[in-house]
Amino acid sequence: MWSKTEKEVARQTFRSAYERECKELSNKVKDMANTAINPDDIWELHDFLTEKRKEIDEKYDYRYSVLILVFGRLLREGWIGLDELEGLDKDKITKIKNIADL
Amino acid sequence: MWSKTEKEVARQTFRSAYERECKELSNKVKDMANTAINPDDIWELHDFLTEKRKEIDEKYDYRYSVLILVFGRLLREGWIGLDELEGLDKDKITKIKNIADL
Repeated sequence: MWSKTEKEVARQTFRSAYERECKELSNKVKDMANTAINPDDIWELHDFLTEKRKEIDEKYDYRYSVLILVFGRLLREGWIGLDELEGLDKDKITKIKNIADL
Repeated sequence: MWSKTEKEVARQTFRSAYERECKELSNKVKDMANTAINPDDIWELHDFLTEKRKEIDEKYDYRYSVLILVFGRLLREGWIGLDELEGLDKDKITKIKNIADL
């Protein structure tokens, strides 16, 4: 169960992580586009984007049934900090940390 | 039948068209990447690239059995000029022009 406050914290944290990861992706895409010389460089950029989009689509799954796992992964990968989980109950935070440490 | 000279002209013209079209695509991709603000702009760039890649893959078909059609389309779309067909026999050039005019 997620309280109203927890849902607000979760929603905000989830959104921040998504925006950070997309921002980093965007920077990488800019870099690849601006240094592209040959047609193959453009196809490589396309392959890269296809893969990242799939990865991001799968990762950012906002169902409460999987959200602990999602946050664990985001914490492990550095897209969120522990401080952004403040407001969740201690049990959830412990689980998220455990998953992050796996 | 394509003579050795015709094959050389065809290969060069085909390659030039491909490089021009990819260059224009590359410029468009740079532009989209550099003006991207939101995650959705990146997904839009990906969709655009997916579509253009498919179109280009289908268009640039270097089989002698379809090359007249391919050149007709490239001429119609402005990726090649009539002068680049010099060296092909007149019958082929006429067919290519007719297809371009369709």
